[in-house]
Order: sequence, then structure tokens, then C-alpha cells
Amino acid sequence: MLTTVGLLGFGNVGSGVAKLIKTEGGLIADKLGWPLKLAKCLVRDLNAARGFEPEPGLLTTDPSEVVGNPEVQVVCELIGGVEPAKTLILRALEAGQHVVTANKALLATHGLEIFRKASEVNRDVMFEAAVAGAIPVIRTLKEGLTANRIQALYGILNGTTNHIITRMSKDALTFAEALAEAQAAGFAEADPTADVEGHDAAHKLVLLSALAYGVLPKLDDIHVEGITKLDPIDFAFAAEFGYVIKLLATASLHNGQGPLEVRLHPTMLPAGHLLSGVNGVMNAITIRGHASGDIFLSGPGAGMMPTASSVVGDIIEVARTHQSLESSLRPPILGWRKLKSDSVMPMSEALLGYYLRLTVLDRPGVLSAISGILGAHNISIAQVIQRGQNNLTGWVDLVMLTHKALEKDLQKALVATRELEAVREARLIRVEESL
Amino acid sequence: MLTTVGLLGFGNVGSGVAKLIKTEGGLIADKLGWPLKLAKCLVRDLNAARGFEPEPGLLTTDPSEVVGNPEVQVVCELIGGVEPAKTLILRALEAGQHVVTANKALLATHGLEIFRKASEVNRDVMFEAAVAGAIPVIRTLKEGLTANRIQALYGILNGTTNHIITRMSKDALTFAEALAEAQAAGFAEADPTADVEGHDAAHKLVLLSALAYGVLPKLDDIHVEGITKLDPIDFAFAAEFGYVIKLLATASLHNGQGPLEVRLHPTMLPAGHLLSGVNGVMNAITIRGHASGDIFLSGPGAGMMPTASSVVGDIIEVARTHQSLESSLRPPILGWRKLKSDSVMPMSEALLGYYLRLTVLDRPGVLSAISGILGAHNISIAQVIQRGQNNLTGWVDLVMLTHKALEKDLQKALVATRELEAVREARLIRVEESL
Repeated sequence: MLTTVGLLGFGNVGSGVAKLIKTEGGLIADKLGWPLKLAKCLVRDLNAARGFEPEPGLLTTDPSEVVGNPEVQVVCELIGGVEPAKTLILRALEAGQHVVTANKALLATHGLEIFRKASEVNRDVMFEAAVAGAIPVIRTLKEGLTANRIQALYGILNGTTNHIITRMSKDALTFAEALAEAQAAGFAEADPTADVEGHDAAHKLVLLSALAYGVLPKLDDIHVEGITKLDPIDFAFAAEFGYVIKLLATASLHNGQGPLEVRLHPTMLPAGHLLSGVNGVMNAITIRGHASGDIFLSGPGAGMMPTASSVVGDIIEVARTHQSLESSLRPPILGWRKLKSDSVMPMSEALLGYYLRLTVLDRPGVLSAISGILGAHNISIAQVIQRGQNNLTGWVDLVMLTHKALEKDLQKALVATRELEAVREARLIRVEESL
Repeated sequence: MLTTVGLLGFGNVGSGVAKLIKTEGGLIADKLGWPLKLAKCLVRDLNAARGFEPEPGLLTTDPSEVVGNPEVQVVCELIGGVEPAKTLILRALEAGQHVVTANKALLATHGLEIFRKASEVNRDVMFEAAVAGAIPVIRTLKEGLTANRIQALYGILNGTTNHIITRMSKDALTFAEALAEAQAAGFAEADPTADVEGHDAAHKLVLLSALAYGVLPKLDDIHVEGITKLDPIDFAFAAEFGYVIKLLATASLHNGQGPLEVRLHPTMLPAGHLLSGVNGVMNAITIRGHASGDIFLSGPGAGMMPTASSVVGDIIEVARTHQSLESSLRPPILGWRKLKSDSVMPMSEALLGYYLRLTVLDRPGVLSAISGILGAHNISIAQVIQRGQNNLTGWVDLVMLTHKALEKDLQKALVATRELEAVREARLIRVEESL
């Protein structure tokens, strides 16, 4: 017996997959019972430099030598982006091939169409590598914790932003400095928008929400906020309050019951929590099952070999069932037989603690005016740090932690405080009190 | 369709399993595609008090109403210990029933016989709950990281001892005080031997080694050392050196190549490592895959519902395949088609850093005599703390960290130092430098 694999795309991750299949052939056969064989690899340019050189004759520029080729049983899509990846995946499924992919952007935006097709033709689509690299979080939600009602999940899902945040936090770099450094070191792309604005992490959060709750949220229904507005001074104030700032993705049932609350924004976490110790390009997820309690997973969230580790793990799983037409032998693609159409709670209804930093004129009556506005909007202050003037401009930082408040009340109060002549700027970072 | 489940044993975990199957029936059917049904439960005493009361008529004191009953498809063994659990599991497999168990003691000592029988009759034995409670570490090794050569794994695998160690470390309790407190709080048993001497963690380590390396070590071949000899002062010295002490289970390939090195003993870890932040009854595992990098998992290692979470997760997985006779559709029981018979490296060959605490007479020449002995045994000192006399007895603690040394050299040197008149006591704690 033999399972044949075709690759679509042969960049960084594709090279890692080819390398693992080649160099760990014996190990894989020891576990699977038979070998994997790399059959064909679609590339754009036959002569480009590659991280791992496959056997001669395996490369092709013709998609139909992989997709629909009866000598390829499992198609591994590593092109990324929506097209041509989507069309090729749909065509592979129609041809009876199983699909393994690392394409979070595609699944988060066009997943339903792909999953529907896979279910029609009784084929599997696996995507462990699409979320948090080498960390087996998809499997954990689909299989390990499948008997749990998931009360909440919290994730650090983007290594680039976590690296930037770690440098801002530990070494007081500005966002611009930390970004430039990450770009120079190859941790951030020339156009860093997808990472620093939170889009990449939001794609992963959509998939995790589907696995946890059986609901695939629309990206537009999720509050997504990146890290571009963070200031080193916020990390220092956070530390004074006993917090660490992370770009945290969360999905939970509002008030433990519903509706589904899904959001991604800079968040203050208790400094002692395991998530707060996740630094650099690492990713991590805490999953709170009603029976399991908090399960915490962390590890490399990206990179050639960590991502390939998850891709090949999926190929091996699919290989076990590739001859079978019994779809019930594997968990459903998102862990649920049928997705629900529950809508996601609007961000305005979120009930959270807030860190507020207002740049104010250092003169009498300002704190009183601001706390009056907050009180009028049902926002109660838990702690305040007001420091005397330490510069010549007359502007100082007034920093507060609030008790839990409604996001919509908070936003209204911020608008009102910004109208005060004595307030130049008002920023907020949300506080996660349930960790 | 319906999958029927029989329980052997209805204590704490059994009650949790019955409760999950009953209360999460809808959720489970949403994921599996059909419901689980609790068919029969073997108990010792029909009238005993239970954490969850099953439907009338489900309880029986006759094992044959569960084992071999054609109306029970999956047998869930939660009795613990070797007999009658072993006989009942073998009989269930012979009768064509799949088995889910949380019985680490049985699998670590008689696993081969059970796995061989399961393979003969083409049935599955699943045991996620046997190691680290709710943490999906078995699945992670069998499936998520299956394409990896596992370079090392490090685990905190016993919640009772970790709770005791946490109290000793954070609040300077003695071992006896922390144990008594844990017993009063229900975290430790009246006879705590299996926990505090490391036997329970060693059972789990045997199973993890088999999953990681395809070798099921004999318990007698593993160096197992509990926490009874730890002293609060060692935690204080460890902190000065930047370490935290944990009862750490490790399995690795010696020098990255082999032989297999498996050991369990109090170990100093770098204070900043995630494992060092795992406190109280939590368990945690770091798995170092050659491709994945370090994957860290933590969560509740025991308890009614966390353990039930893993048991029911396994039942659901088995339910997907219970009608099929194709054994290749699931991963092999230990993740490998065929176990290897590699032997485990003797502890004397281990090459580790050591923390040494010698109680010595506070007089000239002692340090020189001791360092002479160490040097003669190829042991080089990295750091020393020697404090002036702070009591009236004349005895003081001389504390050292060594560079890497052979365990057998270290043991010989300790024997020699203990023979010095000026040395009353010499203790060691091993240092994990690869984290």
C-alpha cells in the first residue's frame, strides 16, 4: 500500500512538507503502516530556488498534473490566498481527492462552499496548519475536547504581532521601531498590514469559533483591532496594574449563555497567567471546556518546519481513510455534523473592564469632570494613576481601570471626554478579567 | 444509529462519564452524528452513594452484563489497578468490544498483553484519560505530531506532588506540612506513596515514552525518585540560581541520538520556562518535535469532570469506527504499528547538571577537600554559595551547581564526600539545562 501526495505550491512550507515526507519516510511508515509518496508538485517557475530540492521530474507548472490526476490521492494546497487556491481545491474534491490545506484566509472567507463540496463528495478537508502552526489546536477542539461545551477560548494567534508586542513591552520600543526591527529580522513582511491590523489572527479566530461553537462567523461581524496604536507607556502602566498587554483573540458565550461573543483586540491579561508568558513569535491558546477546565497549548505559530509538521500530520490522518467512502469514520471537517447559523453578538454589547489613558491638562477639576462623565454613563472607576506634571507641555497622562462596563457606554463616554477642552487624547485597552 | 457504552466502575470518574453522556447528549450527537447511550454500569454495591445517579436499571454487580453483552459496543474501564480490570478488558476485546480506559497502572505494567490482544481482534484501546487528565497529550503524540522525531518530552504528570511542591516553594512549608495540608484538602490520599514516591507519574511516563519512541520501557529500567527528600531550603537556593524545582518526567534520545533516556526525579528548571509556571494540581507537558519545535500543553491532570472529558472524547472517537473491521482507519493504539525492543539507557550514563547541597562544618579546608574530590571525579563546579555560620551548631550549607557530569561519576563523588568527617549530609537535585 502507498498513499500519494500532490503539492500545490512549493514555497517555504511546501519545501518543508517535501522534506519531511522524504527524510521521515521510515518513521511515517512505522506509524501509518505504509509510506507516503510525493507524486507531483505544482510550481510557478520550474527554475526558481527552493528550500528543499525534490526529485527530478516531480515539478510541474500544470495544475492538472496534481488536481484530478488519478495518481495523486491527497492534494495539499499551500498556495495561499483565495484564487486560484479555491478553484483548485474544489476541483480536487470533485475529482475524489482529499485536501489538506494551511490556507486560513481562504477557509475563513470561503470555507462554507469548500466544506459543503467536501461533504457532497464524501472527502475530507484538513487544516491543522492553518491555525497556530505546529500546535494541534484543531484536533484538540475536534477530538480531545469534543464532549465539552466550550465556555471560552483565548488565543495569541499571530507570531509577528506577538514579537512586536514583546519588544515594546520588554524593551520599551515604539511600535514603529519594533516593526522595523521585525521586518529586518524577517519576522514581518514588507507590507505588514495583514498581521498588525489583526486580519491574519481574525481568520484563525473565525475557524476556532466554528470548531468550538459550530458557528462560522462572518469576518465583518467580528470586532477586529490591531496593535498599531499601542504606545510603550501603556505597557508600563499595565505592569503597574499587574497586567501584560497581548493581541488576544477571544470567542465565548456572552455571560456563559450566549450570544456568541467573538473579538480580537489588544487586551490586558493578568501578569501571572500562562498566556502572559508567551513571548516572541510563539502562539498560544487557552480553551475553557465546561468539563475539561482550562487547557493551555503553546508552540511555534509559523515557520517552514512547524507548519509542515501539522500539514504532514494531516496527510497521515487522511491517508488512513483515503480508500474509504464512509465519511462517518473521521470527525466532520469543523467537528460538527451541521453548522449553526447563530449570529455573533455586536461588539457594542460586550461587558468588559477597560484601561483608559487620557492625555489631559494638569489642572484642577479635570479628574472630576472626567469621572463625572464616566459616572453619567454607568462606568465606575476601579483604580486611578494620576501623576504630577513631568514635562513642560502641561499635558499629563491620567490612567484608569474601570469596573465592568458596556462597550457602547464606554464609547459614548469617550466621545464626551474627548469634547472636553482639557482632554487631548483618550485611548482604551480592554481588560480580560476571566483569565 | 446509536453507540452503546458500558461502564466498569462507577466512582468519581464513572459518575462524571455518566453525567457527560446524559447532559451533553445533544452536543455529542451534533458532533458524532448519532447519540451515545449508557447501557450498563458495573458497580460493587448497588446502594452506594454516587456523584451522579444513573437511570434506574442501569446498575449491575454482574460483570457479564457489561463485558460480552452484545448490547454494549464500547466498554469503559474505570476500576483502576491490575485485577479484575485486566481480565475484564481482555474479555471485552475477545467479545469484539472496543475499550476505553483511564488505567495507567494497568497499561504501564500489562499494556503489551492488552495491546496484542486488541490488535489480534481488530479492536481499539484508547486511554487519553490515563495521562494528564483532560490534556489531549496522547492524541497530540499519536496524531498531531506524528511526522516528528520526538527529541525530548518533559512532563509534570502528577497533580498531588505538584501541589505539594508549589506549597513548599511559595510558602516554605516542609514536605510533611504540605503533605498533611494536601491530605486534609483531599488532594492527597491517606496512603500517598504512589504519588509522592513517583510511581503514578512513572506509569504515565512509560506510556508517553511508548507513544513518542515506539518503545514501552519496563518500569524497573527507569530511574524513579519522588519528592519526599526535598527541603524548603532547596527551593530558596534554587531561586537564587534562577531555577524552580519540579518533579519532572523526561524521555529523550541521549545526546539527540540514543539510547532512550527515561527518568523521573526532582529537577531544577529555568524559572522563566512555561513548565516552571505550572502550579498547584495542574499537569503540563513540553514535547520537542524535530519539525514542530517545542509544543507545550497544560491543564487539569485529574478530577471527576476533567478525566471524564477525555474518556468521553475517546468514546466518541471509537464510536466513529465501532462498526468497522478496518483497523487501519484509526491510528495504532500507541501510534506505532509495531513497538521496538530498544533498551533504556541506565541512569548511570546520564549526563546532567547537578545542584549539590552539602551540610558541612564551617571550617577552613572543607571547600577545598570537596572540590578536590569532585575534580578527581571529572566534575567541574559552575557556581558556589557558601554562607558564614548562622547558627550555633557549626554546620552550614554549602551549595553548588556543577557543569554537566556523568551520573555515575557524581554518585561516586558523593560517596567520597560523605566519607569526609566535615560532611554530614550531601544531597543532589538534577538540573535540566535543555529547556
